[in-house]
Amino acid sequence: VGRKIQASAVEALAGLLFDGMTIMAGGLGQAGVPETLIAQVRASGVKDLTVISNNGGLDGFGLGTLLAGGQIKKLVCSYVGENRILEQLYRSGELELEFAPQGTLAERIRAGGAGIPAFFTRTGVDTLAAEGKELREFDGQRYLMERGLTCDLAIVKACTGDHAANLAFRQGAQNFNPLMAAAGRVTVAEVERLVAVGELDPDQIHAPGIYVDRVCESTLDTTGAAPYPAPRPAAAARFGQRAGWTRDQMAARAAAELGDGAYVNRGVGLPMRVAEILPPGVSVSLQTANSLQGEGAAYFNSAEGFGMIRGGHVDLAVLGAMQVAANGDLANWMAPGLVKGMGGAMDLVAGVRRVVVLMEHVEKSGAPKLVEACTLPLTGARVVDLLVTDLGVFRLDRGLRPLTLVELAPGVTLDELRAKTGAAFEVALG
Amino acid sequence: VGRKIQASAVEALAGLLFDGMTIMAGGLGQAGVPETLIAQVRASGVKDLTVISNNGGLDGFGLGTLLAGGQIKKLVCSYVGENRILEQLYRSGELELEFAPQGTLAERIRAGGAGIPAFFTRTGVDTLAAEGKELREFDGQRYLMERGLTCDLAIVKACTGDHAANLAFRQGAQNFNPLMAAAGRVTVAEVERLVAVGELDPDQIHAPGIYVDRVCESTLDTTGAAPYPAPRPAAAARFGQRAGWTRDQMAARAAAELGDGAYVNRGVGLPMRVAEILPPGVSVSLQTANSLQGEGAAYFNSAEGFGMIRGGHVDLAVLGAMQVAANGDLANWMAPGLVKGMGGAMDLVAGVRRVVVLMEHVEKSGAPKLVEACTLPLTGARVVDLLVTDLGVFRLDRGLRPLTLVELAPGVTLDELRAKTGAAFEVALG
Repeated sequence: VGRKIQASAVEALAGLLFDGMTIMAGGLGQAGVPETLIAQVRASGVKDLTVISNNGGLDGFGLGTLLAGGQIKKLVCSYVGENRILEQLYRSGELELEFAPQGTLAERIRAGGAGIPAFFTRTGVDTLAAEGKELREFDGQRYLMERGLTCDLAIVKACTGDHAANLAFRQGAQNFNPLMAAAGRVTVAEVERLVAVGELDPDQIHAPGIYVDRVCESTLDTTGAAPYPAPRPAAAARFGQRAGWTRDQMAARAAAELGDGAYVNRGVGLPMRVAEILPPGVSVSLQTANSLQGEGAAYFNSAEGFGMIRGGHVDLAVLGAMQVAANGDLANWMAPGLVKGMGGAMDLVAGVRRVVVLMEHVEKSGAPKLVEACTLPLTGARVVDLLVTDLGVFRLDRGLRPLTLVELAPGVTLDELRAKTGAAFEVALG
Repeated sequence: VGRKIQASAVEALAGLLFDGMTIMAGGLGQAGVPETLIAQVRASGVKDLTVISNNGGLDGFGLGTLLAGGQIKKLVCSYVGENRILEQLYRSGELELEFAPQGTLAERIRAGGAGIPAFFTRTGVDTLAAEGKELREFDGQRYLMERGLTCDLAIVKACTGDHAANLAFRQGAQNFNPLMAAAGRVTVAEVERLVAVGELDPDQIHAPGIYVDRVCESTLDTTGAAPYPAPRPAAAARFGQRAGWTRDQMAARAAAELGDGAYVNRGVGLPMRVAEILPPGVSVSLQTANSLQGEGAAYFNSAEGFGMIRGGHVDLAVLGAMQVAANGDLANWMAPGLVKGMGGAMDLVAGVRRVVVLMEHVEKSGAPKLVEACTLPLTGARVVDLLVTDLGVFRLDRGLRPLTLVELAPGVTLDELRAKTGAAFEVALG
């Protein structure tokens, strides 16, 4: 047995926990969450924690248990998801929330582990995420300076670990785990399966043991039973009785933008349907923060996934929106009473070559969502190339050319469309 | 067959080559060199190339063939090794050389591929590598700003590729290849083995297909036959008749600095012997730019390997030296008439927790190598913790305390040592 191997989570965390410390915790949604170690942090009663993690767990699951225990003072994350206790703590002022774009968060953690104190990224320029940060131009583009992150303790979860503390992950469980392993001043890993040295192929190790100080076996895995919130019922029926395109037709119109062999990233909700309604003869690869799916598959960590996005390797993103402005501005992450975090949306609009937005043309109230200037906080400025609504298709070209209607849905008149649109537009119907 | 698969290197590079272009070429020494694609670049006659690669190949091997063909105008690399044609071209002014520390080079390429225009690193501060670069302080430490690198074309070599252009590497062949694949505006890969989609485990892909535009099979592999220069004969015999320690004894003294379980990186030459002469009961892991060896093994790319180094994860480096100064300055990469590049030495001294130097006490000429101030270009300022020579052991503590002799070799007198040392030192023999 290697010198890093511990008999249990109790031993693995012995002497490492103190009030006011900063902890990074791996995991994205329900994948790769160090549940056993989190349970031991919970049992220890340590408090006033600053926790860095992509999200805040769920009620009764993962970091949600530390929130319920009142142990977390501040959460640095990209998205908080559906979590009632978190929402209560935040609204009552008992929890401080700091949002970072998901790709920026991943890269900051990678930088911290790799001895890089700061780097520049386009993600978040012209948004709230830029507040207080240095803005700098390189080759005519503006970038934000972001700082590397380290922590007192990183807790991670791997599928397999060997006695030299080398770690291997399965599929989406990689996410933030290898990055955090490197960024911890001390790193503790729990593993589903502990194996002898030599059982892991040296070419297939995602987090080399040099990053990992202690290893124990997982004894808690509730992901199968975790109360992950069911998706809200789709709003599809709402369009049944009206003029304009159905949601499937909207998705199909967006899908028509996909060339054969394209790499595409889709936002949640309606954009997810785009891949199901591809034109004949077209096949695409679907990119996410942690995978490529389509012709074959590949899994990778979140720094790699967002490096792909920021580096311009993804051809197209299909996103939902709350508001789109005539100049290509996009708002899709924050509204009064809705504080969830930007997730990966800012990274996508800053990095993907072409951005297509799918949204209903008006709010439930009837208020226009295509407007002269966004009133909601921006996800990105001048980033939308094409907008597909239930009433028509608009070319925005990132604000380089005037807003132009290029297709009108059946049964919709130009006068009706103008009345429901908060911005002037040109008309160039094919 | 996937749409990215090409019948040969001729098709794979068709239409992509033009005079004056910038090409990145993967490979480190003889591992992972895209020989088949380089041969086609050679055959094409394209010229005035700027080539970015860790080293310049060998005479008659890899990039050495393009140098011989007069096709390379400028080479950006970390080390040029033993290459007569390169040396001739450089001395005659026909070739421009730009050296970057190996870890900085890897990170600049990763940054380029990941949409990061610039980042900060401690590597190279207070050395020639800092010339013309912005210096900036973070948390009391000084860092250099380094720029991301991209290129017109990246050529890489993988062990296995599938029809979706996913790539997997074996052992040290990973090196710069996955990083360059992402940094190419166009990327072409040659693979030893082309397989159907599904044959590569999606968790074990080192360069996802999204980075790779075209793939062909390797038809040239001369690594077995390549004229890699034999190591120069060891200088061991020179010490036979003199007072002081033998080279083995020096290595053993350095090995005594290694704690059980330590992660250690060794420079070339005498430092390599350190791992062979460990004290009883001590086992260590050996770290290189692309691997960990010891208790189990792991392979990784060069950005990961140098991230480990820069991030402070390596406990100890054992390095050779040309000069060491009383204040801990180290010079070990450049001397009059010797222009080889700094390789990874600047990264090591900037990142590793403790630096032990092993060197002969005087030059062949008898001139002292332990001096008041280095006259050769620095590898790093105030970086040496301990110096082991054939005549004694000195504590330098990175210049925080006065230079102190702590052990004297048998048969050596203090007067003799003072006469052979170019700096004043205190004496605290145990």
